[in-house]
Amino acid sequence: MLPWSAELAGRLDHHVVDSALLRGNPLGDPHERPLLVYTPPGYDDEPDRRYPALYVLLGYTGHVAMWLNRAPFRQPFPELADAVFTRADVPPAIVVYVDAWTSLGGSQYLDSPGTGPYHSYLRDEIVPWVDEHYRTIPDRDHRAITGKSSGGYGAMVSAMLAPDVFGALATHAGDALFDVGVRRSFPELARRLRNMYDGSYDKFLADFRGRPAGTKEGDLELLEIYAYAAAYSADEDGTVRLPFDDTGAVVPEVWRRWQALDPVVMAGEPRNAEALRSMRAIWVDAGDRDEYFLDFGAVAFHRAVRAAGVPDERVHFELFDAGHGAIEYRYPLALAWLAHRLS
Amino acid sequence: MLPWSAELAGRLDHHVVDSALLRGNPLGDPHERPLLVYTPPGYDDEPDRRYPALYVLLGYTGHVAMWLNRAPFRQPFPELADAVFTRADVPPAIVVYVDAWTSLGGSQYLDSPGTGPYHSYLRDEIVPWVDEHYRTIPDRDHRAITGKSSGGYGAMVSAMLAPDVFGALATHAGDALFDVGVRRSFPELARRLRNMYDGSYDKFLADFRGRPAGTKEGDLELLEIYAYAAAYSADEDGTVRLPFDDTGAVVPEVWRRWQALDPVVMAGEPRNAEALRSMRAIWVDAGDRDEYFLDFGAVAFHRAVRAAGVPDERVHFELFDAGHGAIEYRYPLALAWLAHRLS
Amino acid sequence: MLPWSAELAGRLDHHVVDSALLRGNPLGDPHERPLLVYTPPGYDDEPDRRYPALYVLLGYTGHVAMWLNRAPFRQPFPELADAVFTRADVPPAIVVYVDAWTSLGGSQYLDSPGTGPYHSYLRDEIVPWVDEHYRTIPDRDHRAITGKSSGGYGAMVSAMLAPDVFGALATHAGDALFDVGVRRSFPELARRLRNMYDGSYDKFLADFRGRPAGTKEGDLELLEIYAYAAAYSADEDGTVRLPFDDTGAVVPEVWRRWQALDPVVMAGEPRNAEALRSMRAIWVDAGDRDEYFLDFGAVAFHRAVRAAGVPDERVHFELFDAGHGAIEYRYPLALAWLAHRLS
Amino acid sequence: MLPWSAELAGRLDHHVVDSALLRGNPLGDPHERPLLVYTPPGYDDEPDRRYPALYVLLGYTGHVAMWLNRAPFRQPFPELADAVFTRADVPPAIVVYVDAWTSLGGSQYLDSPGTGPYHSYLRDEIVPWVDEHYRTIPDRDHRAITGKSSGGYGAMVSAMLAPDVFGALATHAGDALFDVGVRRSFPELARRLRNMYDGSYDKFLADFRGRPAGTKEGDLELLEIYAYAAAYSADEDGTVRLPFDDTGAVVPEVWRRWQALDPVVMAGEPRNAEALRSMRAIWVDAGDRDEYFLDFGAVAFHRAVRAAGVPDERVHFELFDAGHGAIEYRYPLALAWLAHRLS
Repeated sequence: MLPWSAELAGRLDHHVVDSALLRGNPLGDPHERPLLVYTPPGYDDEPDRRYPALYVLLGYTGHVAMWLNRAPFRQPFPELADAVFTRADVPPAIVVYVDAWTSLGGSQYLDSPGTGPYHSYLRDEIVPWVDEHYRTIPDRDHRAITGKSSGGYGAMVSAMLAPDVFGALATHAGDALFDVGVRRSFPELARRLRNMYDGSYDKFLADFRGRPAGTKEGDLELLEIYAYAAAYSADEDGTVRLPFDDTGAVVPEVWRRWQALDPVVMAGEPRNAEALRSMRAIWVDAGDRDEYFLDFGAVAFHRAVRAAGVPDERVHFELFDAGHGAIEYRYPLALAWLAHRLS
Repeated sequence: MLPWSAELAGRLDHHVVDSALLRGNPLGDPHERPLLVYTPPGYDDEPDRRYPALYVLLGYTGHVAMWLNRAPFRQPFPELADAVFTRADVPPAIVVYVDAWTSLGGSQYLDSPGTGPYHSYLRDEIVPWVDEHYRTIPDRDHRAITGKSSGGYGAMVSAMLAPDVFGALATHAGDALFDVGVRRSFPELARRLRNMYDGSYDKFLADFRGRPAGTKEGDLELLEIYAYAAAYSADEDGTVRLPFDDTGAVVPEVWRRWQALDPVVMAGEPRNAEALRSMRAIWVDAGDRDEYFLDFGAVAFHRAVRAAGVPDERVHFELFDAGHGAIEYRYPLALAWLAHRLS
Repeated sequence: MLPWSAELAGRLDHHVVDSALLRGNPLGDPHERPLLVYTPPGYDDEPDRRYPALYVLLGYTGHVAMWLNRAPFRQPFPELADAVFTRADVPPAIVVYVDAWTSLGGSQYLDSPGTGPYHSYLRDEIVPWVDEHYRTIPDRDHRAITGKSSGGYGAMVSAMLAPDVFGALATHAGDALFDVGVRRSFPELARRLRNMYDGSYDKFLADFRGRPAGTKEGDLELLEIYAYAAAYSADEDGTVRLPFDDTGAVVPEVWRRWQALDPVVMAGEPRNAEALRSMRAIWVDAGDRDEYFLDFGAVAFHRAVRAAGVPDERVHFELFDAGHGAIEYRYPLALAWLAHRLS
Repeated sequence: MLPWSAELAGRLDHHVVDSALLRGNPLGDPHERPLLVYTPPGYDDEPDRRYPALYVLLGYTGHVAMWLNRAPFRQPFPELADAVFTRADVPPAIVVYVDAWTSLGGSQYLDSPGTGPYHSYLRDEIVPWVDEHYRTIPDRDHRAITGKSSGGYGAMVSAMLAPDVFGALATHAGDALFDVGVRRSFPELARRLRNMYDGSYDKFLADFRGRPAGTKEGDLELLEIYAYAAAYSADEDGTVRLPFDDTGAVVPEVWRRWQALDPVVMAGEPRNAEALRSMRAIWVDAGDRDEYFLDFGAVAFHRAVRAAGVPDERVHFELFDAGHGAIEYRYPLALAWLAHRLS
C-alpha cells in the first residue's frame, strides 16, 4: 500500500546474472550482478506474444537496487513505468533495469581498463540473457535504451557504439558537451584538493575510504570526477589519468580522451553519425536550470543529431522548467513515446 | 551482496499491524501500518532469553519502508544496527522500526485532531504488539526510544509523555527550541506564500497536490510547517492553525500551542521533569553546523535535562562536526550505548 | 564630468558642526561633525524665499562623506536629488545630509548611554543650526525626515519622538518588525561566536579591531548587532546588553528593550500614534525580496500607521521588485513626493 | 578627520589630462581624463630630488574618482599608500592613479577598436605628462605598474607590452589563465541571455541602459564579459565578437583572440618573456578562495614568469587567505616592496 509499496499491474522480476566479462575487473567489483526485468500487464496471458524491450540505465552513484528507493510524496520509477503500461494507449513493452555500478560510483557504461568492460557486458551478456529468458522481439529495431544524467550518457553512447543492438534512445539531462559542463567543475576540485588534501587524489581517496562517506565537503564531487576519469582516461594498466592539473586547467592529452567520448563529439564521427541515422527514435530533454548545464549538452546533442541527418520526425527535443534533480516524472513520457515508436 | 543488499547477522521481520486507533483518522491515512522488528543474532538459539527493546523513529517525510533505501557509499541504518549487535561488547537487543507517517509527511508522534492519535498508537498498540510477539523484557526499564530530527523530537516527547512505557531515549538533532530553530523559517515561508500563492496555504496545497512534488521551490518547506501545525496546533475539528501571519510574525495564541510542545519547554513542566529524572539513559547530540540550528535545540534540551535533576552519569551530550544531513553513522553509537544502559 | 563627477544645478555646502551634546560621548567619537546642506537651483536668486527642509539619514555603517561615493553605472544620491529639483513640477526644497555615525557603525539616531545622544543632537543642534544658517521655513510642517535601512528607522523614530520638529517622513526598507527581521539573525551570530570566538563578543571585538575589517566571515554581521545593542539596550553606565544568549535565543529582558524601540511597536503607543496622525505625509516602501525581510517591516509599519488613524491620502505604501541593495533610485521618488506635500 | 576624511602626510593632486589619442574613441567616452598624482612627504622640501613613480590601475568598473570612496571601517587606498610613505624604512615615491574607464566599465588597459587606445594613452600620454609635471626619475628602471583584478591584468600586460616604459609590476588577483577563470562564467551567461533576453546581447544592453543599473540579476556579469570582449575581440570596425555561443561553449576563433591576450599565454611569447626578464621586480599574489579563481591565474603567471627566466630573487609570490573582495590591505605591501626595489 502507498506510500510504503505499490502493487504493480505488471511484474518485476529480480535476477542475478553472472557476468564472465566482469570477472577479474580492475576494481574488484562483483561479477554477479542484479538485474530487474519488468513484464507488462498481460504478458503471462499471451504466451506467444513478443514485446519490444526498453533498457533503463542509472545515473552516477546509482545501482539497480536504488530503483526501489522510496522518496517523499513521489513513487519510484518502476511504479511510474508500470502505470504507463496500464494505459490503453501505450503498447506493452518489457523494461530492463541494468546495473553497471562500480565501487567508484559508476562505469559510464563504457569498456575501460580503469573499471571494466561494462559496455560489452551490457551488449554481449545482458541483452542476450534477456532475449533468452523473456519473450522479446530480439532485434535492434525493437530495443531502446534510456537513462538520466550518466544514464542518459550511457544511452547516447551505447546507441552509437552498438547500433546493431539498440535502435532507439532517450536521454534525460545526459552528460554531454563536456567543454561546457563537467570542465567547469575542475577549478573547484583543484582548489579542494589543494586546500584539503595537499593536491593529491590519493590522499583524498585514502581519507574518503577511511570514514563515513559524505562527511566532508566535496566528497562526492571529487569522487565523481575520479570515476569519470577511470571510465574515460585510464591507461591500459588501469592507471587513472586526471583531466585537470593543479591550477584547474585541463591536461590537453587527457582532455582529448575525454572529448573523444563526449556524445556531442562522437556524433560528429561518420560511423556514429550513421548509427544515429539508423535510430528509429531519439528523445533528448533536460531541465533549463540544470546545475551541471546539461541543458546545453541536450541542445548540442540535438544539433549533432540533426547534423548527422536524423529526420526531425524521429526526434523529440525539449527543455523544461527544472534543475537536475527530481525529474523522474519525465522518464515515463519518454517510455510511452518509445513504446509507440518501437511497436 | 553489497552495495545492493546485505546479509544480516540478525533477522528483520516485516509485519503489518492493524491499528484500531488510526481507523478513521482525519487525513484518511491507512490504519494498517507496516512495522519492522529486528531480532539480534542468537535470538532463535536461546528461546527463553528476553531482550531489551529499542524503538526507532523516522524524521519528517519518512515512512518505515524508507529505512531500506540504499544510499551511495553508505549502508542503510538497519544494516548498521545489525553490525552493532555482531560486536561481542554490545548486549543484544530487539530493534523496532515504527511507522507514523501521514500524508502530510509526518505526525510528530503526537495525538492531534489534525492528523490522528499517533502517540497513543505507538504507546497502546505498537508496544503491546511487540511485547506480545517478541521476547522482550516487557517493562519501561528495558525500553528505549530514539530518532533523528522529527524522530528525535518523537523520542523526547514520547519519553516525557509516557515514562511508564519508555525508560531511556536518544535524540539526534531532534526538533527543539522552537523559538530559535523553526521560527526562523516563517518569514521565508510567508514570503513564498505571498509571492507564489497569493498568501494562501490552500492555494499552495491545491497546487502541490496537482503536480509532481518538489517541482517548485519551497514545496517541502511549506508542506513541512503545515504538517507541524497539523500536529501542534490543530483545533478539535481538525482545522489547522498556522503559527505565522502574512508578515512572517508568530501568531501568539498559536505559537503558545507550539511552544507547549517544544521539548525544551515541556522539560520545565514538573510532570515531565519527573519523567526525565526517571530515565535510565538520555543521549543528546547534533551537528554543530545543523542547518535548522538544532545544535542549539540539543544544547537547550541538555540544559533542561540537567535542570530537571537528571544525574550527569545518565546523560551523553555531544556536538559533532556536521550539518543536518548524512549523520546516520551517529545512530549506532547511541544504539550501542543504550543497549548497555538497558542491560 | 560623469562618471567622475557631476555639476549640480543647485549647491551642496560642506560644513562642520561642533556638537556640545556629543562632547564626551561614551565611544569617544568626534563631536565635530560634518554636515552637507543642499540648496536647490534658484536659492541664491531669490534671497527672501524660504524653503521646506528634507533631512536625509544614512543606513548602518554609513557616514555623511559616503554620500559622495561613486558607484559603477549609477550616480550618488545627492546628484539624483539635485536632478529632482531641476524638474519644473517639483517644488524646491533644502536637503540636509545628517551624520550620526559612530565607531560601531551607527547610532540608530537614538539617545543611548551606549553611543551618545544622537537623537538630541539631531533635534536640538542640527535642525536649529540649519534653520539659523539657511532660509528654511522653520517649522515642523515644513520639515521631513527620510532614510533607508537604519536611516529609514531613524526617520520613523525621529518623527515619532519629535513630532514638534518633523511633520513628514519617508522610510525605504527601514528597520522594523524586529521579531521577524533582525531576530532571525541571532542563531547565526551565536553560532559564529561559539565556533570562532569562544562565544565571547569581547574576543570578537578585540580580534576585529586588531586586523583589517571584513577579513573574517561574519565581521559586519557581528558588529552590526553589537551596534544595535549599544543603541537599544545599553545600561546607564554604558554596558551593552546583548539581545541573544549562547543558544541564539532572545534574552527576554533585553529583547523587551529592543521591542520598545521597534517602530511597529512604538506606533502602538498613544503618544506615538498621535505623532503619526500629525504627520502631513508618510512614505513607506521596501523591496519584496529584501534579505533582511524589511518588506514585512514596511507592511507592518504601514498597518500600524493606519491603525494609528492616519488618513490613507497622506500615505504612500509600495513594495517593489528588489532586494535590500541598489535601491537608491527609490529615494528621489519619495523626495519629489515629500517636496509636494510640504509645499 | 576619520572616518570622513584624512589628512595626508604627502599631497594628492587632481588633474585633468586632455588625451589626443582618446579623441573620437569608438564608445564616445570623454577624452579629458582625471588623473591623481601623489607626492610623498618631503617632496616640496627637496626641490632637486627626483623619485621613482608607481602607476596604479583600477579593476573593472573602476574609475579614478572611486579611489576616494570611503568604506566602513577601512580607509581608501590613497590614504593607506600615504601611510606607507610616512614610514622611515620606505623610500619615497610618486604614486600615479590612472583612469582608463569606459562606458562599458573598463578598457583592460589595451588598445582596441572596440573601446579605444587605452594602452597607448597610458604609455604615450600619461607617463610623459607625469614626467613633465613631476620630478620623476624618468626612465623605465624607476617606473612600476600595479593593480588589482583587471588592474592587475593591466599591470601584467602593460609591463610586457611596454618594457621600455615600465621596469617593475605588481598584480593582486589579476585576470589570468582565462581558460580556468573567466571561461567558467560563460555557461551561466549564455543561460541568462537565453532565459531573460532571447539569447541576445543587444536586447540585454538595450534593457540595461533603459533602467537603473543592477536592478536585474546578472547585470554586471553580463556587462563585464561584453566589456572584455570589446577589449579583447573587437573587429577593426568596432564590432564586438563574443567568446561564447548559445550553449556557453567558446567560439574557437574568438577564444584564440582572448587567449592571445591572457597574461599566462603572453608570457610564453619570446618577446614578452624577454620583457619579463628585464623587470627589476615582480609581485604576484591572490586570495586562495578567489571567487574568480584568480589564485590559479596567479600560480600560472608566476610559473610563466619563472619559465621566462626571471630570477627568483626578483619575484614575490604569495597566496593568502581571502576571496576576491576586501583585499586592498594587500596593495600597500606591494607598494613598499616596489619602492625598495626601484630605489
